[in-house]
Amino acid sequence: MKLYLLYNATFYTFQPGQPTVQALAIGNGKILAAGSVEETEAALPLRAKRFNLNGLTVLPGLTDSHLHLQHYALGLQYVDCETPTRAECLQRVTQKARNTPAHTWIRGHGWNQNVWEEGFGNAVLLDEAAPNHPVYLTAKSLHAAWANSLALQAAGIDQNTPDPPDGRIQRDESGKPTGILFESAMTLVEKVIPEATLPQVRQAIEAAQPHLWSMGLTGVHDFDRRQCFMALQELEQAGLLKLRVVKSIPLENLEEAVEIGLRSGFGSPWLRIGPVKCFADGALGPQTAAMLQPYEGSSTDTGILFLDSEEILEIGQRASTSGLSLAIHAIGDHANHEVIKAYAQLRQYEHQENRPHLRHRIEHVQVLHPNHVSLLAQHDIIASMQPIHATSDMDIADRYWGERARFAYAFQTLAALGTRLTFGSDAPVESPNPFWGIHAAVTRQRHSGYPSPEGWYPQERLSLQQALEAYTVNPAYTAGRENEAGKLQPGFDADLIVLEEDPFRTPPQRLYEIRPLKTMIAGEWVWER
Amino acid sequence: MKLYLLYNATFYTFQPGQPTVQALAIGNGKILAAGSVEETEAALPLRAKRFNLNGLTVLPGLTDSHLHLQHYALGLQYVDCETPTRAECLQRVTQKARNTPAHTWIRGHGWNQNVWEEGFGNAVLLDEAAPNHPVYLTAKSLHAAWANSLALQAAGIDQNTPDPPDGRIQRDESGKPTGILFESAMTLVEKVIPEATLPQVRQAIEAAQPHLWSMGLTGVHDFDRRQCFMALQELEQAGLLKLRVVKSIPLENLEEAVEIGLRSGFGSPWLRIGPVKCFADGALGPQTAAMLQPYEGSSTDTGILFLDSEEILEIGQRASTSGLSLAIHAIGDHANHEVIKAYAQLRQYEHQENRPHLRHRIEHVQVLHPNHVSLLAQHDIIASMQPIHATSDMDIADRYWGERARFAYAFQTLAALGTRLTFGSDAPVESPNPFWGIHAAVTRQRHSGYPSPEGWYPQERLSLQQALEAYTVNPAYTAGRENEAGKLQPGFDADLIVLEEDPFRTPPQRLYEIRPLKTMIAGEWVWER
Repeated sequence: MKLYLLYNATFYTFQPGQPTVQALAIGNGKILAAGSVEETEAALPLRAKRFNLNGLTVLPGLTDSHLHLQHYALGLQYVDCETPTRAECLQRVTQKARNTPAHTWIRGHGWNQNVWEEGFGNAVLLDEAAPNHPVYLTAKSLHAAWANSLALQAAGIDQNTPDPPDGRIQRDESGKPTGILFESAMTLVEKVIPEATLPQVRQAIEAAQPHLWSMGLTGVHDFDRRQCFMALQELEQAGLLKLRVVKSIPLENLEEAVEIGLRSGFGSPWLRIGPVKCFADGALGPQTAAMLQPYEGSSTDTGILFLDSEEILEIGQRASTSGLSLAIHAIGDHANHEVIKAYAQLRQYEHQENRPHLRHRIEHVQVLHPNHVSLLAQHDIIASMQPIHATSDMDIADRYWGERARFAYAFQTLAALGTRLTFGSDAPVESPNPFWGIHAAVTRQRHSGYPSPEGWYPQERLSLQQALEAYTVNPAYTAGRENEAGKLQPGFDADLIVLEEDPFRTPPQRLYEIRPLKTMIAGEWVWER
Repeated sequence: MKLYLLYNATFYTFQPGQPTVQALAIGNGKILAAGSVEETEAALPLRAKRFNLNGLTVLPGLTDSHLHLQHYALGLQYVDCETPTRAECLQRVTQKARNTPAHTWIRGHGWNQNVWEEGFGNAVLLDEAAPNHPVYLTAKSLHAAWANSLALQAAGIDQNTPDPPDGRIQRDESGKPTGILFESAMTLVEKVIPEATLPQVRQAIEAAQPHLWSMGLTGVHDFDRRQCFMALQELEQAGLLKLRVVKSIPLENLEEAVEIGLRSGFGSPWLRIGPVKCFADGALGPQTAAMLQPYEGSSTDTGILFLDSEEILEIGQRASTSGLSLAIHAIGDHANHEVIKAYAQLRQYEHQENRPHLRHRIEHVQVLHPNHVSLLAQHDIIASMQPIHATSDMDIADRYWGERARFAYAFQTLAALGTRLTFGSDAPVESPNPFWGIHAAVTRQRHSGYPSPEGWYPQERLSLQQALEAYTVNPAYTAGRENEAGKLQPGFDADLIVLEEDPFRTPPQRLYEIRPLKTMIAGEWVWER
């Protein structure tokens, strides 16, 4: 049995009464005692191991509250095409082909022809790099892709293939496809790439864990689907799941879940059922997020609302008969308002039925009408937000939303009103590195310092304490695990990260550089640099 | 944090290499160390509590592998009508009526007019005992019931009601129903009794736990349905579930479970998804169990087969795509053979698909053809049996099955062939008292010693060690928890019972009298006599 002491570090506990301690006693994957070295030693047998942490800093393990685990994990197996030269990218494809059975698809991501002196690639070059594999490499922008001849063949793309609506097949002078595909032409290939099998997904997730640990993540709230859930169960049963996972249920499975009687929170400390996930609108980039007023520069375009408050209420009532909470994607101020209205009615319904508040959440909450900012706290709605989106998207937010961007990614406004914020990355859309999110929330700047020394809408900056709580205490609350996770406190999960530098003493502009030295999950050192 | 020592007892560990130890160190609900006092003390802090068990005997907590938890729990709230006089039964009804809101149904069970000097009761007597409640009391035989006037009214039973097929409404000379109902006439009332609500089920299960602990049970495999599952989840989330529950999924929910991707084994150490339950045949009593040859005394009646091997294989293949194991009710030798055939093919299928053996089981295995006794071990099929059925049913088994009863409840034949036996009670059909089951398995006698000093088919008696394993190690294996439950071993659940007398030194004929002094679950004393 593993019983031991960690001492000689600053342990930030996130317990209000005792913000730091000098030592932790750990046993059976849980924190046994937190306090002075003397106090914690008394909780342990004489022969228990002692780990001197040499004055380092310890935080509770961090949780990403919005991530697509399967897609992130599979993406890690793609060839990294973000190379200084095209030649190097091709070399990596050659390398990958050597380690991949012939005729298996090779995927890659991240190229940018503007960075490459040689410009765009073509199918012939890729054929040389990997003559026996279909190859498909997406551009960093995700608006273009580079395929080889086997991939084009598999998709049935030749000189007779017309450009699809909203897409273009790049062609040479003779009309022959070059291998570069734009926009909807990409789907011609994507739809013929075989889906990953369950063993592949399981293996990819297993292999992704060290990447997440290395960034300080000990938990995730996942928004992928059935296959991901099955892979996670297999990993847990094999003792290979070393990540606390909250697994959402897609709306399409709501009826099945209710028929079985599955509740949010059912499961183990490793893997548990989360909320039912649905979509109220689209996204900012393609201007499909549902807005109350037209996008800047348009007099009519207000995006697309997928679900109005009545439809959401109906879903919510059905889900709540089974104790299932909701997580609803809402980007635009209109979509957010519809979700808030539905949740307000759902709170009344819960009250009438004499049921407790479920941990309902809105995913993204990207822009709110000023009249609605107070409603999340009022109706006990969790704001699940991705700070990195604020800094990635600030320019297009300004462009499309104009002055409405004042309450875009409005972290501090919401927090000051008493809203519970829980943070994530939406990986693989963005990096899951939580310190990138923390940096974005605290500085409202990109790593470069852009756009200004104060950051974008600096009144929305959070304190470091607030940002860290949104990665620790609040995700635990959101998952219904507030009495066993998210703090360094007796009886809680021994999930923690050891840092070389104290983030409370790090200049905010450098927070994104932090990476843990070591990560512990359930009392086990799962990762060391 | 709870870290402490239990010492000065004979701890039967059920670890082959170390069958007994002198002390256990316990922490965080798990066994930290098992061995000598010195060895276990070294695993604990100096100030840890020490419990002197004064030379008593300790066993791992027992598990009932086949029980209907909701029905058992609701049944505990019935008036106990097994009284020496009718007057006393009526008094108990009066008492219950005082503590029950008016117009709420009062249920009772256990009366036997042959025991009562006064003979059958009638509606008028019950009306006096409970004028404001509909009352419905089933006979111990379950073939008759006693209702009061409000209950008859609610069921629409009056002198114009004809006897239903296969049933009889007892009537006085004027033709007026007396309140006594036989066989299918009982369902006229039963179908109008409102079903228990979820809060009622939750509360009933919570209240049933101490009854189970008092008998030495720390776990159950439940075969009730959705409402039971929901109540269990609510109890677990409220921290009130103190019983290890494996929850089966009814066949009617197989599709939903597969759509969601739910696997057997998903859940926590308290509550986990078990097998998919279905029925291959009926039962012995009504002669609906499916037999290869006609029942004794009939030339044609072979019972009813609900599912043949092809249908079972189809169900099994569907379930196994989601990692769901099966638990199939089979009583007669024909039903058992169909299930075995299907499982044999399912093992081939698992092999082809490169999947591990799921923990498939047959529920009851009441009678086997001699040619089929070896097939369970051969195909790695778990025999989930209820020893108490052997002693309850031996007379009707002899009557209906004649010489075929040689391989009825064939515990030792199956065990000697290497079959894994996991034992339960089918409560509320029988008492869930595991020591009654152990006694029946070891003696093949009723408590009275009937039918003979050697017991019924004495070659099928088990050793006490075998019987205890079928309540400890084997249910843990069946649930996929063989590495964390069922033994007193470091890293395992601290679930155990303390006995005044050592069952290995108790005369077998008295084993049914054993009741624990104390029961511990997850390191917590949940019950003390």
